[in-house]
Amino acid sequence: METDSIIGPRLVIDEKKCSGNIDRMVRKARENNLLFRPHFKTHQSLAIGRWFRSRGVDSITVSSLKMAYYFARDGWKDILIGIAYNPREYELYEKLSDKCRLQVTISCPETALILAGQCRIPLEAMIKIDTGYNRTGIKWDDHASLGRTMEYLGKNQSIKIRGLMTHDGSTYALNNRQKILDRHLKSAERISVCRDTIKMKDLIISEGDTPSASLASSFEGIDELRPGNFVFYDLMQYINGSCSFENIALALICPVIDIRPASGTIVVHGGAVHFSKEKISARGKDIYGMLARLDSNGWHDPGNQIFMSSLSQEHGIINYPVTAGKVRPGDLLGVIPVHSCLTADCMRGYTLTGGERIDHMQELPQDSEYVL
Amino acid sequence: METDSIIGPRLVIDEKKCSGNIDRMVRKARENNLLFRPHFKTHQSLAIGRWFRSRGVDSITVSSLKMAYYFARDGWKDILIGIAYNPREYELYEKLSDKCRLQVTISCPETALILAGQCRIPLEAMIKIDTGYNRTGIKWDDHASLGRTMEYLGKNQSIKIRGLMTHDGSTYALNNRQKILDRHLKSAERISVCRDTIKMKDLIISEGDTPSASLASSFEGIDELRPGNFVFYDLMQYINGSCSFENIALALICPVIDIRPASGTIVVHGGAVHFSKEKISARGKDIYGMLARLDSNGWHDPGNQIFMSSLSQEHGIINYPVTAGKVRPGDLLGVIPVHSCLTADCMRGYTLTGGERIDHMQELPQDSEYVL
Repeated sequence: METDSIIGPRLVIDEKKCSGNIDRMVRKARENNLLFRPHFKTHQSLAIGRWFRSRGVDSITVSSLKMAYYFARDGWKDILIGIAYNPREYELYEKLSDKCRLQVTISCPETALILAGQCRIPLEAMIKIDTGYNRTGIKWDDHASLGRTMEYLGKNQSIKIRGLMTHDGSTYALNNRQKILDRHLKSAERISVCRDTIKMKDLIISEGDTPSASLASSFEGIDELRPGNFVFYDLMQYINGSCSFENIALALICPVIDIRPASGTIVVHGGAVHFSKEKISARGKDIYGMLARLDSNGWHDPGNQIFMSSLSQEHGIINYPVTAGKVRPGDLLGVIPVHSCLTADCMRGYTLTGGERIDHMQELPQDSEYVL
Repeated sequence: METDSIIGPRLVIDEKKCSGNIDRMVRKARENNLLFRPHFKTHQSLAIGRWFRSRGVDSITVSSLKMAYYFARDGWKDILIGIAYNPREYELYEKLSDKCRLQVTISCPETALILAGQCRIPLEAMIKIDTGYNRTGIKWDDHASLGRTMEYLGKNQSIKIRGLMTHDGSTYALNNRQKILDRHLKSAERISVCRDTIKMKDLIISEGDTPSASLASSFEGIDELRPGNFVFYDLMQYINGSCSFENIALALICPVIDIRPASGTIVVHGGAVHFSKEKISARGKDIYGMLARLDSNGWHDPGNQIFMSSLSQEHGIINYPVTAGKVRPGDLLGVIPVHSCLTADCMRGYTLTGGERIDHMQELPQDSEYVL
């Protein structure tokens, strides 16, 4: 890995590890006869999108309409906008629908009714089912709301109901393979109840979370996979067992700026505006990142576990035992972020281990978001 | 406030409230005979910087060298880079020193020694003292480290030691005026001990945190104030008593995208990539933002307290009691962020209540960061 040119915090991707993650998930979807619609909210990068395309992927999920425009401009023609439909965006959906097959996410009857009143373009709808995460969507056992949603959408001939989708994000916080698999099964069971209730032909059932997609070997009742985080993985996924350390395809390289032996800490330039403030708890402590071992080939499991214990705007505080070896101001450390999606969003651009820069959507000037 | 053009999450500034906050702090510094060097890391905006300039402010603090370049390009000529010096940045300091009076922050003897070996330009140094926050800097009672730091810096004639600085960020988490004032006094006492120890003439003592700057009426032993957050304030500062609700000069306007009466929640488009994941705890619960009441004049204290209870990448979940009134998908809500510095950094641009867009540093393409 080329580090001489690194001055301040820099987000580096190991293309080989990243490609390995993509290959494995593409193969898994294929072997299980699943449609594969990876979520691009994690990388938000045209360059990485093309790595998927070169492996035959042609349908994607995004987390905002802005992101749909970003990828549509690069030739993606089959896009599910995975966030619940915002009626204020209708005109922008209409404009984008000229360029690609668009799928909209409907999460409550109220939205279905509004969209049915607005829609003048061919639009496919995925109905969001809450199978236990309790974030968005219609609760799996609320048949009345699901019925009303279907009824409202059915009033508009332009709208085709494509299927039901779930994203059980509660798996991210589990740290046990069996618990994740149990949740995956429960989620599939619950969404199947919905499908059976509405008795409509050819409905797709779509599942989202990376832990289930990574760990499950059976996808009974599921037709489509939409994981996103697996493209990089991160500390959260390493700790919950969804990946090995060597699968983690990105690290934030940070210079040391303060040495504090009396506190048992060192400080790096790398704070909340670089990592995001996402944390996990382990043994009662908050963790914002973990040190990796750097060498000319990239980053590796350090053997020990040295954690970032707090973050302010630009500072990262690392609990650093004397036994871990001497560091000097200006030395570079590799830190595995807790949540790669948010860190990538903060950093707005990547460097490959070979030195090449690649894009991230957040580099775009804000006033060019909805240009086609 | 003009809202018709708002489609997705938008960060809005009330210029009148913001100007009021600036005026009050400028006046306070003047009345207390303090140098005023506001921290621009909160707003990171040339436009807002000019509001300060129009009130006679000509010296500033920034939190990164990149930010120093940003403001230097707009004519700021006296800049303290408030993050600890990173030896990898020396050449960039040198380039910038042609354009302005630069102050560097030194937080440990090791860095002092390295800088003394590198420095070929006139540079003023502020030594960072840890008066109790335990983040960075030399502990106030570690006279040996302070002595070594002074000695190393003294070896290079280009470096002038300007003073000692503290930023006791622990005041942000206090929710009681008296505790904040006690901490402020303690901090001033401790840094005075350092000044007395080193017996060097004309050293400036500089203090940073917004709660102390907002609440204290006595600044005994302090020569310079460097608050930043006060320009906007936010929910954290409102809860710790540093400001009134009507002082909060920014709100994130978010569209409703899901209505979930069975969970007692509504969901807005406005998540971790918009607010940051900063939270505070109140009554044992995590809080990521609070609803304000919107009208044509902006946002106001709603009377009730309705909180954002969780955030994922693009979603914000609000605990919304039925009694708070009916909302529909597409309605706009005003949310007061927990930590305005981080929310502004995520949003990368502002809209004034009148509709005008103003800049934020993070709009810059990454490769133009160090251009002069």
